[in-house]
Amino acid sequence: MPIKLSITDADFEDGFVKLLGMKRESDADVDAVVADIIAAVRARGDAAVCEYTNKFDRLNIDAKGMVVTKDEVDAAVAAVEPDLLKSLELAAERIRSYHDRQMPADERYIDASGVELGWRWRPVSAAGLYVPGGLASYPSSVLMNAIPAKVAGVERLVMVVPTPDNKMNPLVLAAARIAGIDEIYRIGGAQAIAALAYGTETIKPVDKIVGPGNAFVAAAKRRVFGQVGIDMIAGPSEILVVADGSNDPSWVAADLLSQAEHDPVAQSILITDDAAFADRVQEAIDMHLETLPRAEIAGASWRDFGAIVVVENLTQAPALVDRIAPEHLELAVDDPDALAEDIHHAGAIFLGRYTPEAIGDYVAGPNHVLPTARSARFSSGLGVLDFIKRSSLIKCTPESLAKIGPAAIALAESEGLQAHGLSVAIRSNRM
Amino acid sequence: MPIKLSITDADFEDGFVKLLGMKRESDADVDAVVADIIAAVRARGDAAVCEYTNKFDRLNIDAKGMVVTKDEVDAAVAAVEPDLLKSLELAAERIRSYHDRQMPADERYIDASGVELGWRWRPVSAAGLYVPGGLASYPSSVLMNAIPAKVAGVERLVMVVPTPDNKMNPLVLAAARIAGIDEIYRIGGAQAIAALAYGTETIKPVDKIVGPGNAFVAAAKRRVFGQVGIDMIAGPSEILVVADGSNDPSWVAADLLSQAEHDPVAQSILITDDAAFADRVQEAIDMHLETLPRAEIAGASWRDFGAIVVVENLTQAPALVDRIAPEHLELAVDDPDALAEDIHHAGAIFLGRYTPEAIGDYVAGPNHVLPTARSARFSSGLGVLDFIKRSSLIKCTPESLAKIGPAAIALAESEGLQAHGLSVAIRSNRM
Repeated sequence: MPIKLSITDADFEDGFVKLLGMKRESDADVDAVVADIIAAVRARGDAAVCEYTNKFDRLNIDAKGMVVTKDEVDAAVAAVEPDLLKSLELAAERIRSYHDRQMPADERYIDASGVELGWRWRPVSAAGLYVPGGLASYPSSVLMNAIPAKVAGVERLVMVVPTPDNKMNPLVLAAARIAGIDEIYRIGGAQAIAALAYGTETIKPVDKIVGPGNAFVAAAKRRVFGQVGIDMIAGPSEILVVADGSNDPSWVAADLLSQAEHDPVAQSILITDDAAFADRVQEAIDMHLETLPRAEIAGASWRDFGAIVVVENLTQAPALVDRIAPEHLELAVDDPDALAEDIHHAGAIFLGRYTPEAIGDYVAGPNHVLPTARSARFSSGLGVLDFIKRSSLIKCTPESLAKIGPAAIALAESEGLQAHGLSVAIRSNRM
Repeated sequence: MPIKLSITDADFEDGFVKLLGMKRESDADVDAVVADIIAAVRARGDAAVCEYTNKFDRLNIDAKGMVVTKDEVDAAVAAVEPDLLKSLELAAERIRSYHDRQMPADERYIDASGVELGWRWRPVSAAGLYVPGGLASYPSSVLMNAIPAKVAGVERLVMVVPTPDNKMNPLVLAAARIAGIDEIYRIGGAQAIAALAYGTETIKPVDKIVGPGNAFVAAAKRRVFGQVGIDMIAGPSEILVVADGSNDPSWVAADLLSQAEHDPVAQSILITDDAAFADRVQEAIDMHLETLPRAEIAGASWRDFGAIVVVENLTQAPALVDRIAPEHLELAVDDPDALAEDIHHAGAIFLGRYTPEAIGDYVAGPNHVLPTARSARFSSGLGVLDFIKRSSLIKCTPESLAKIGPAAIALAESEGLQAHGLSVAIRSNRM
């Protein structure tokens, strides 16, 4: 049974702290294996990648066979139902349009001392996108990871996707075509991450790697960080629904299950001010679970990690929401904007009764790659900013250097860094 | 002697690749020690922090003694020379003014389908700033790390600074006062990082930790990443000067030495189209080294890691610069903006002959915490964005959900996620 807490219980704080501290990560010790794989790929390039692909994906390929050709993508696109292709295209267009607005402006100005200052943004030159194989091979994730990179202006966008037993989801290739991926390789695991980070004879290295993966992929990303940039390490999915008693319990139940069905260690939480409504949501969950194909996964997640928190008044909700800092937050109330105003930490906020979280997973436009495991306290969802970087710009004239130089010299000398001071003083004839 | 390469040499590419691959990090294996320290602080809180402080900093304090009081800060400020205080205040004012411009705008709009979309930025609630003790205890770094956090709106800004043998740099406390730090603790090392990340009886946990430190601090930051956000792991300082033959060689020599004096493993590189000028720079370096107090460090850095690259024409420079992706880039030429236009990867660009890098270390305004070790290919210097995070906002009406919902349902079903589809369909009476 899911955890049930009421804010009026004497031991509420203890229970809530326990809820926050629930461990949902598998602590598989894969790091040593991953270190070996990376070392092998660095030392032996293509040959090592092909060997691991043979071993882990049961796919016997040579270096040339790693490449997914244009013809293969053409064939995959042709195999996809036209209606589904249209849905993918609609999603891509909406994601592109939202992310277009994220592109920040450059800045350049001359300040009161005559110093010219500013910054400019430039794209990462090459980015790699990891796409899981098998069951979790989601075309929507291809769009969500690739489109911000294209909007940012990344010149070379490389996708890797393992094809265990030579099985490839054609929708993934169709999404890659729609998103404008430049190169695709049928490799996965730590060996694919190593190939992207360090390059092989066939695969040129990239500067940044994004995309979700299993424990091996996550460990490999951590290890190559520094050599390349990485996105966040994604944890299991989460949803927090704040709902009053005026909602249809079966709607809220569907929303809670939509995240629960991702993974037995996903987490769905309901905060409500109506204990009777909470009971009706539980009943609706039981009912939905009777017919949902992924009832086993969703049921396990709800049973092991689900929670219902009853408060006296929804004004008590924001403080609890901030402590949870959920990946996805639904505010199913009459005035969701007012409630949102008091909340600080959430990856994405779904406002009102007609905004199920799943609409954001596919077609709303904002990114579905969002901070998990309370990291919304300090990080944002994936976006254009993840594929661009800022260079600051400074330009002094002899006059403006003379104005601000003395303070720099004084501070440099106070820090015992005389060459710093010298480099300023020598231009000011202050030697 | 520093490396000398000429682009016309037959083995130039080999030499340049070797230059790019130079290992300048000390690979001290401190990770196991750090893991123990973090575990001890998590288990025993203040008591463990005080024990490690006693052991590593030779400072016998209890929990209460960790706190640096307002009176101590008052006394430190009073002890600082008024002129130096003014220089710090000028620096702070200029840093604040530059970072004020970095604050991004929120966004909210209704698109053609009637879906309301947008995002909003909110500050991290609490941030911790690590300040090294001893020699590398730089007041300028306090300003550079703390002011962007204050501009971002961080409510609680905590500084930790070790005071080995009870020695504290009063300028660091003065900078903390000027920057608006809220709490200061006289602790350092992995134990301070653990205290900030997990909290103790005395120190409430923070959400993000920034600031430079030794190998123990860096390893501790890597370990607590996820529990809290961290800034980049800073490597040794670097400067790349692109200069034509019209520069004063002693100016360029001073600039190269200004980074070399930081650390024997710092790296200074000159790219020039004038071999005779390169020789004059080397002579000027030798001359400066005769008088500079930190000649031993600067000389070792220049000898072991310095490099001079002679090209035929400065139009060849941008491609080389991008491969180096330097932390600091000086363009000492007549039209630095034109040259900068062709360069993609650099942490900060210092334009023209009158803009020594050191002016950016102290008073120009842009941040001096910048990406090292070629990470300017994929990351930016510290700024306001490091202390805020974005929540995406989505709000559908029954009508707009009906418009975009079918595509979401189709994609959800194609991914085998029926509860996702259900949560949309159930609101559209499409069941």
